[in-house]
Amino acid sequence: MLKATGFITLTTDFGLADGFVGTMKGVIYTINPGAVIIDISHEIGSQDLSATAFLFAASYKYFPRGTVHVVVVDPGVGSQRRAVAVETEKYYFVAPDNGVLTLALKQEKTSKFIELTNPEYFLDEVSDTFHGRDIFAPAAAHLSLGVEIEKLGDGAGGLREIRFSEPEVSQSGIKGHVIYTDKFGNLITDIKQELFDSVISDGQFSIKIAGIQLGKISRSYAEVSAGEPLAIFDSFGNLEIAVNRGSAEETLRVRKGDAIEIVYM
Amino acid sequence: MLKATGFITLTTDFGLADGFVGTMKGVIYTINPGAVIIDISHEIGSQDLSATAFLFAASYKYFPRGTVHVVVVDPGVGSQRRAVAVETEKYYFVAPDNGVLTLALKQEKTSKFIELTNPEYFLDEVSDTFHGRDIFAPAAAHLSLGVEIEKLGDGAGGLREIRFSEPEVSQSGIKGHVIYTDKFGNLITDIKQELFDSVISDGQFSIKIAGIQLGKISRSYAEVSAGEPLAIFDSFGNLEIAVNRGSAEETLRVRKGDAIEIVYM
Amino acid sequence: MLKATGFITLTTDFGLADGFVGTMKGVIYTINPGAVIIDISHEIGSQDLSATAFLFAASYKYFPRGTVHVVVVDPGVGSQRRAVAVETEKYYFVAPDNGVLTLALKQEKTSKFIELTNPEYFLDEVSDTFHGRDIFAPAAAHLSLGVEIEKLGDGAGGLREIRFSEPEVSQSGIKGHVIYTDKFGNLITDIKQELFDSVISDGQFSIKIAGIQLGKISRSYAEVSAGEPLAIFDSFGNLEIAVNRGSAEETLRVRKGDAIEIVYM
Repeated sequence: MLKATGFITLTTDFGLADGFVGTMKGVIYTINPGAVIIDISHEIGSQDLSATAFLFAASYKYFPRGTVHVVVVDPGVGSQRRAVAVETEKYYFVAPDNGVLTLALKQEKTSKFIELTNPEYFLDEVSDTFHGRDIFAPAAAHLSLGVEIEKLGDGAGGLREIRFSEPEVSQSGIKGHVIYTDKFGNLITDIKQELFDSVISDGQFSIKIAGIQLGKISRSYAEVSAGEPLAIFDSFGNLEIAVNRGSAEETLRVRKGDAIEIVYM
Repeated sequence: MLKATGFITLTTDFGLADGFVGTMKGVIYTINPGAVIIDISHEIGSQDLSATAFLFAASYKYFPRGTVHVVVVDPGVGSQRRAVAVETEKYYFVAPDNGVLTLALKQEKTSKFIELTNPEYFLDEVSDTFHGRDIFAPAAAHLSLGVEIEKLGDGAGGLREIRFSEPEVSQSGIKGHVIYTDKFGNLITDIKQELFDSVISDGQFSIKIAGIQLGKISRSYAEVSAGEPLAIFDSFGNLEIAVNRGSAEETLRVRKGDAIEIVYM
Repeated sequence: MLKATGFITLTTDFGLADGFVGTMKGVIYTINPGAVIIDISHEIGSQDLSATAFLFAASYKYFPRGTVHVVVVDPGVGSQRRAVAVETEKYYFVAPDNGVLTLALKQEKTSKFIELTNPEYFLDEVSDTFHGRDIFAPAAAHLSLGVEIEKLGDGAGGLREIRFSEPEVSQSGIKGHVIYTDKFGNLITDIKQELFDSVISDGQFSIKIAGIQLGKISRSYAEVSAGEPLAIFDSFGNLEIAVNRGSAEETLRVRKGDAIEIVYM
């Protein structure tokens, strides 16, 4: 059975300006003074569920076994969308049931889905607009203390999922999309290294994006001159288009959703 | 008597780019290696005392009893403005005496006001520009260790207060103001739910702001279509004007200080 | 001998939006669950090595003896640039060997330089683009547990340094430069208080920057009217040009690298 270790992570779109995140931490420490709380991100684009799912799936698995991961990007707060907790082989997840856990759950062996319905584990007063403070933070704090997940509510059945585009493999190569742009303006695509390796193997290829072509995969940004574009497998194992000492997003004027193509030569 | 618990919160306008906040934490941990430090916000508009007072009052009370709350928004640093520490029934506050504690102190039973005059509890060298590091952080760290507040200096008498606009109640309804806009572009007003309930009770009403009218209070953002405005009581108990999946600030072009009116029908 | 105390600081240009920093913390807590991790800054301009060196040197020495300081601003990630760890009389440093430690090391008695070559102290898989997660975070976590620095790799000899402009002293006065602008738009120069005191002593002087002249050093921002410029020694001991309740950067339209001159009268 999974054992909580006191670690709790927070992933939200609350920003850091308004005190929302600090308030959630106050609630957690009031319930579990020994908790260790780590911010994954609070700067996700407001209500961007697919970016949340991607970023969270890339980060959560680097935390200690037993960590309680809280994800609150929640445009449906106060509506009928469910609040849920999940126990997998290694982690707890606490989130609104709106798909933000989609990609993480694909990587986990999941044992239990619970809907957060037991008001004993809420704050005394529950607002209409800030369930991060009133429902999700208390649930996480109690889980981090070792409270059994079943106590938090009823079985939840399956969760809602977000549909993500999959890269398309054909005789001529692979067609994918840019799914995330990071702080450096690097363009992260949905083409994983395993797919690339299995499809392209040892032939020659050309990567086409935004009117440019790249004929090889680099191993470091510094392999090309400053200001030049390159292709590299990023730290998530995804094909990334970058510009050495610059921003691919700005240089190539590419945005999330835009196409990338790898063709055999 | 209040007993410190090692929890310390920080609320400043220092931003997170320059290392000011990290440095304050280094000072605190050097004095109290067992402290637990939580950021409430460091992204308050530079030197915006009223936003600080509002945001802090909405957040501090979710922290464990005995928490030391440090608030450093301090345009008068180095001048004759006093540095103070306050002990209430539940918390310690450490701040410049410029009104940033105004709204929090209205919610607390206060027992002691102390001016920070004892240099034994400052850093050895006190700069002219960074009392957060040199005076407030050490004071907070010593309080969090259980040092009696009287040791930090002399009795301070009353503190300076900021005057906040109060909503105006008349025969025709309530006139208030937007007092804060959050990261989502939600417009928080000075009209509290208790006031609304006591004045409007069960009659019909119309909320007028920026040329639009709203006839009801929603319970969730999702009650209206995406892009549509709504009125809701926010997590602080204040009347908030929002736009579902959008920004009321941008859609309605309303700013802090603008008027809102609730009229009987 | 230096003894680790479990404190680890992080200084990067990763921003807080993408989960990079949270992931590094997850790696650290997985190796050392008792670590205390403090952010110095993650909002340094992308790949700005000299700003990193300046900001870090101003901050690191306020932390407890035995702290492990991690600095990851790393445009050469994946290339032949070395990853290093340093043990000084009071601290450990972990960073790429690209000069980011230049100013800090000038303030420290250094005993050991080690190149991080021992893969036992890396994550099992090392990516090409995120050594913060795969190499620097694990190294720091192991050091914070008391692992001897020699175990992390081989002796590294001297480190690469960044050249910083030095102020020029002549018969007519001092010529210096703006080397950093902070969140408030204050202009920090490379003219230290000791230099100023030794050169200018008690004569009259005029500070010239961006077409304005200032005849004195202020002790607080509030000494001049709102909107007026002033000169003050900042919390790092550097001469700073500021505008009371405003931004000197915007008011004077001065940028990093611009000249400042102090002339005798």
